[in-house]
Amino acid sequence: MDPYMIHTNGDGNLSPVLEVHVNINGKSSGLGKIKGRKARWSVKPSDMSDKTFNPIRAIVDSMKVKPNPNKAMISLSIGDPTVFGNLPTDPEVTQAMKDSLDSGKYNGYAPSIGYLSSREEVASYFHCPEAPLEAKDVILTSGCSQAIELCLAVLANPGQNILIPRPGFSLYKTLAESMGIEVKLYNLLPEKSWEIDLKQLESLIDEKTACVIVNNPSNPCGSVFSKSHLQKILAVASRQCVPILADEIYGDMVFSDCKYEPLATLSTNVPILSCGGLAKRWLVPGWRLGWILIHDRRDIFGNEIRDGLVKLSQRILGPCTIVQGALKSILRRTPQEFYHNTLSFLKSNADLCYGALAAIPGLQPVRPSGAMYLMVGIEMEHFPEFENDVEFTERLVAEQSVHCLPATCFEYPNFFRVVITVPEVMMLEACSRIQEFCEQHYHCTEGSQEECDK
Amino acid sequence: MDPYMIHTNGDGNLSPVLEVHVNINGKSSGLGKIKGRKARWSVKPSDMSDKTFNPIRAIVDSMKVKPNPNKAMISLSIGDPTVFGNLPTDPEVTQAMKDSLDSGKYNGYAPSIGYLSSREEVASYFHCPEAPLEAKDVILTSGCSQAIELCLAVLANPGQNILIPRPGFSLYKTLAESMGIEVKLYNLLPEKSWEIDLKQLESLIDEKTACVIVNNPSNPCGSVFSKSHLQKILAVASRQCVPILADEIYGDMVFSDCKYEPLATLSTNVPILSCGGLAKRWLVPGWRLGWILIHDRRDIFGNEIRDGLVKLSQRILGPCTIVQGALKSILRRTPQEFYHNTLSFLKSNADLCYGALAAIPGLQPVRPSGAMYLMVGIEMEHFPEFENDVEFTERLVAEQSVHCLPATCFEYPNFFRVVITVPEVMMLEACSRIQEFCEQHYHCTEGSQEECDK
Ligand SMILES: Cc1ncc(COP(=O)(O)O)c(C=O)c1O
Ligand SMILES: Cc1ncc(COP(=O)(O)O)c(C=O)c1O
Repeated sequence: MDPYMIHTNGDGNLSPVLEVHVNINGKSSGLGKIKGRKARWSVKPSDMSDKTFNPIRAIVDSMKVKPNPNKAMISLSIGDPTVFGNLPTDPEVTQAMKDSLDSGKYNGYAPSIGYLSSREEVASYFHCPEAPLEAKDVILTSGCSQAIELCLAVLANPGQNILIPRPGFSLYKTLAESMGIEVKLYNLLPEKSWEIDLKQLESLIDEKTACVIVNNPSNPCGSVFSKSHLQKILAVASRQCVPILADEIYGDMVFSDCKYEPLATLSTNVPILSCGGLAKRWLVPGWRLGWILIHDRRDIFGNEIRDGLVKLSQRILGPCTIVQGALKSILRRTPQEFYHNTLSFLKSNADLCYGALAAIPGLQPVRPSGAMYLMVGIEMEHFPEFENDVEFTERLVAEQSVHCLPATCFEYPNFFRVVITVPEVMMLEACSRIQEFCEQHYHCTEGSQEECDK
Repeated sequence: MDPYMIHTNGDGNLSPVLEVHVNINGKSSGLGKIKGRKARWSVKPSDMSDKTFNPIRAIVDSMKVKPNPNKAMISLSIGDPTVFGNLPTDPEVTQAMKDSLDSGKYNGYAPSIGYLSSREEVASYFHCPEAPLEAKDVILTSGCSQAIELCLAVLANPGQNILIPRPGFSLYKTLAESMGIEVKLYNLLPEKSWEIDLKQLESLIDEKTACVIVNNPSNPCGSVFSKSHLQKILAVASRQCVPILADEIYGDMVFSDCKYEPLATLSTNVPILSCGGLAKRWLVPGWRLGWILIHDRRDIFGNEIRDGLVKLSQRILGPCTIVQGALKSILRRTPQEFYHNTLSFLKSNADLCYGALAAIPGLQPVRPSGAMYLMVGIEMEHFPEFENDVEFTERLVAEQSVHCLPATCFEYPNFFRVVITVPEVMMLEACSRIQEFCEQHYHCTEGSQEECDK
């Protein structure tokens, strides 16, 4: 009998037939030298996959409530501006993709960090005298998510730590913990328009700190840091000699009354990896085109970090080449009105939502200045029926079919996040349902009867 | 002085100005509680990036030779079928992308493992009674590279090992070693059309073996395993209770005289993750669409491995949605003639190249049956001027402007790999230059004068 011939009389038993053969006839089969080392099947997922934890998925999946069947569902939970069809990308962007396809030039492998010509375009788009950029400073990635992953992978070893904002985008922690990197949370202060508590930030830095992640404009806060606040953040990094990973995926997405400053334009010494992409500003998150901009004017990252990023990019080989081929036209030909229209829509929805929610007893919205979100504080003492923000938002779904993410997803209990990219009528309807919900569940606390009588 | 105000009188020195401030005025500044823990800038790349090693890049980059200026360069080194323009993808494939764009439905985020509808299409494309597949068994990835990365990441912990073919595609080792997974090389036997040395394979398996990677059809060999050989491989896996990662990116790319058998169709018990994608068969490697097919008929992977793959996919969020949206039409509408034409072109080029090289004294090509490559043995004793395959191919570039990869890139010295996707005239010209080169450098070995006199 040929020991390498498979037996096809499978009997449903997990022990393979030939194991028996080996054990019983071992000495007579040609297998003498071959030790059957695993006695039975046991395939376990790796520690890395066990450690990969997405809090949004975990929390949302465990919220097992059905929406109210009498009310159409309004989802204010996903940071995807495309879901309602009211914010299509610009026709120039779609046309750029078709041209890229028709050229037939972008079907092959690109260099793993992206085509030189595409990197040149990104470099010149973001270049400015205060923060010069060339093609060699740009790495194209599969979305901003992969940009962040590569930056963490090159900067931090297992056992080191990174500093991330609270509240903050959950991916930072998901990625870091899956890689065995510890996260330390620095506080954003709602009463100061979500500025960073700089002293607390600085107190968290130790010799194992690999980088500080600064997300501006912010998800989930919709906040935009002022120039002077950014300078203070840079001062901390400079003093502590810690590089910054700037998550600027919402760069330039700020409302008319405020200005966006790319972090790197304000520093001449702190080495900065700025992550961005097409997802939000060009309203095509599914296309998965992101980038890393390497700002290193004092040569602190040096060739080592650059080479490290290049090597890591070779693991899965960069973003879709059709999108890379379209990048030049996308960056050059998207009309200013497109950006303008998106932002004025977002601002108007933000004002509308802020105004409506600010008038509801028990809620404390924080006015946003950019991005696509707004955070709302819940005065939990006035809603004693609910244990926490998760229960609050759960019941809001069950009763009003309005879905907001509990800010526990962002490590920030007693808040919820509203996505403001929905059509205006939906925004209004959602706010009025939230109002009805709060009115039905609001309880006066002792000693504040006055307030309730109002 | 505000300790958080940045100093802009940067002096080019790497120590930030404020560090001095802390050290000198420490007790009087508001920084008492804040320890300046890093004395100076020092940003080092992580161990992971240090361990990420791409042998092709390393070997090719160190081959610092210029081609012969009098001969146009012919590159037979890159496994990209698109570079010469003679193998365009089918118009239906491009049209599918335009339709996907025009629909406006595929700009938003897809689930991290891919749209359900796209996964359904892949499942039904590969479904067969012997290896049934549903949408839940499919995970879409950013190219086959990411498919392989996710499979390794879910199956193996640092300290475990995987078995990979020698010669074999270099990415396996690159990925595994960057993750701290040990690789063990099992031998392919050129004299047996690159079949696996099964005894040696089995002898390598130990209790730390997380999986065996089987690449069929093979890069770099162009070999295609017979049904009975595949059954013997499965018997080993079954006996040793080791799952298989089947890299089937060249699936169905076999010449007319031979048949491709998907590994999973031959087993009822061995759990198999089959990796594939659009890159090769549809001739669009840049589009970065890959997949994992989960074959687990005895529920050995179970939900744990499936969930692990899903969790890992959430790190960077899957492939470009426009390509996902085009998948249905690509899989359904690409005409049979397209596949047929590609394969008959490849076979004709393979025959041509094999025939030409087999006639050259000192070379031992191995006839391929599929994929896009052919391996050529170099009888080094007849080329005493050259130390090894790297030097041989280096000089071939310098003298004849023909670039082939030395098989040292695939852990297989004294061979080189030829890519057979180039236009026929180029293939012919390359072969005749290789002939000229060999004739010029061939030396008779002692005792074989006869041969040389022929
Ligand atoms: C702050 C922040 N960073 C990064 C990302 C990821 O962007 P991408 O979709 O390009 O991976 C998001 C997406 O929501 C985000 O909100
Ligand atoms: C054997 C093998 N597996 C996987 C890949 C990677 O495929 P993709 O470009 O889809 O990542 C290649 C590419 O050359 C290959 O030859």
